[in-house]
Amino acid sequence: MTGAGGAGTGVAGADAAGFGLERLSLNQATVKQLSLADAAALCVRHGIPAIGVWRDRVAEVGLDRAVATVRAAGLHVSSLCRGGFFTRADDEGHREALADNRAAVVEAAALGADTLVLVCGGLVPDRRDLGLARRMVADAIGAMVPEAQRLGVRLGIEALHPMFCADRSVISSLGETVDLALQFPADAVGVVVDTYNVWWDARLADEIARAAGRIVGYQVGDWVLPLPQDTLLGRGHVGDGVIDFPPITAAVRAAGYAGYVEVEIFNADVWAAPADQTATKVRERFAAIC
Amino acid sequence: MTGAGGAGTGVAGADAAGFGLERLSLNQATVKQLSLADAAALCVRHGIPAIGVWRDRVAEVGLDRAVATVRAAGLHVSSLCRGGFFTRADDEGHREALADNRAAVVEAAALGADTLVLVCGGLVPDRRDLGLARRMVADAIGAMVPEAQRLGVRLGIEALHPMFCADRSVISSLGETVDLALQFPADAVGVVVDTYNVWWDARLADEIARAAGRIVGYQVGDWVLPLPQDTLLGRGHVGDGVIDFPPITAAVRAAGYAGYVEVEIFNADVWAAPADQTATKVRERFAAIC
Repeated sequence: MTGAGGAGTGVAGADAAGFGLERLSLNQATVKQLSLADAAALCVRHGIPAIGVWRDRVAEVGLDRAVATVRAAGLHVSSLCRGGFFTRADDEGHREALADNRAAVVEAAALGADTLVLVCGGLVPDRRDLGLARRMVADAIGAMVPEAQRLGVRLGIEALHPMFCADRSVISSLGETVDLALQFPADAVGVVVDTYNVWWDARLADEIARAAGRIVGYQVGDWVLPLPQDTLLGRGHVGDGVIDFPPITAAVRAAGYAGYVEVEIFNADVWAAPADQTATKVRERFAAIC
Repeated sequence: MTGAGGAGTGVAGADAAGFGLERLSLNQATVKQLSLADAAALCVRHGIPAIGVWRDRVAEVGLDRAVATVRAAGLHVSSLCRGGFFTRADDEGHREALADNRAAVVEAAALGADTLVLVCGGLVPDRRDLGLARRMVADAIGAMVPEAQRLGVRLGIEALHPMFCADRSVISSLGETVDLALQFPADAVGVVVDTYNVWWDARLADEIARAAGRIVGYQVGDWVLPLPQDTLLGRGHVGDGVIDFPPITAAVRAAGYAGYVEVEIFNADVWAAPADQTATKVRERFAAIC
């Protein structure tokens, strides 16, 4: 996982390979208890220069006000979360998914987000055919490309952990996201590397290298045991779990990624903590580990 | 996932590709509430010709009596579960693991088991280094090979689902098991395909094909949502979940596997059901789906 081929990235070890705090972004899900305005204010208070925005929080205040909020705060929008869920086969569901994703592209453009994160969707309801679901994902991304190119939005395909394959994403490994992205123009489609979802993969270093030029987002969250009852909420603060971040970060940098790094934590305990305490810990851990 | 290259296996569709009931084996874990003797009697009552045996149940009665029990019942032993857990780095833990695995090889030989299933172990305690853990697994398997060859036991490396990577198996995909197995003689080391652990993998068909000649066990269990609090117990009866068994079975057969198929279900509800009811359902579902 060292930086072979990463000419000029200066990868020499964990410290040298890390991103500086000027590349830290707080994904809004980490402080899910806050509105967009409060999350933006939190970032400003803690010197966090970027934010990953969630669409439900945008919808609460409307797109214009959301855009004004992040601009007034001077925040860069590293991602909009999320589009996707492409695997409804009924006509109405299919139309709804495409319309919702077109709306997401418009929102991402207005926010100036570096990427629109795509969580692709699980198995087609009442079907066991993984190939069918995966073909629907590819087709739907293809259908989004012209609008994404017209509005200058880069779609970021994210693999979810294989434990979500049935119900949230049939795209379960970074390799699959790269295979998908390479079918489309690089200005329109890339991949998002999320440590929580891909850390276990013996092919991870190879696939990150293969993703060179296609990485449009890097998200960090730790794998903490035991898994909670709701397996969506098992992510922990960087350093609280078992993931070895420095080699993954080094590989992402060696592949040419120089964008923001989002700390994204879904965790009931984190949401119950004071947001300023969470932001402080996010900064400290990021500086020490990522 | 169709039977390209499977000369003579007659793969033409789900029915033609399936294994007959003469290849059904009941993994003892499916009726965990029963002793070895009771589980053997259950198999005989239901015309199930083979059993997958667990070492803790062997230890309860002693190896000689366990061997006598399965022989008297006329059962074939499709696997002994399990060896492995190779990733303790302290000297004592390392010695214990090797000694325990040597004992497991002796037991597998005495039982005439088709394979000794290896669950490789999670991260080294207090270490985040996946590479270290994976090298320890490879080294430990190598250390077992001479004894396995001497006693005619085939070691079967099983990938666990990636959600168990941290705590139970750093070997998380079928491809990794094939990579490992190919480092050792084919008479000593193979791989076990377990649907529950590998069904999500976009590379599954390719990796099963690459495993030709190395598949020493095929286990089936379904992926049922939601995951239970104890994620070890999420397996369901074949047909109760989302896994598409026929193409996986066809691929396993096309790769030349002609051994037993173990139904292995860890599930608190199944354990609470009457064992005869479980055995009846196992047979019915196997005949209809696998």
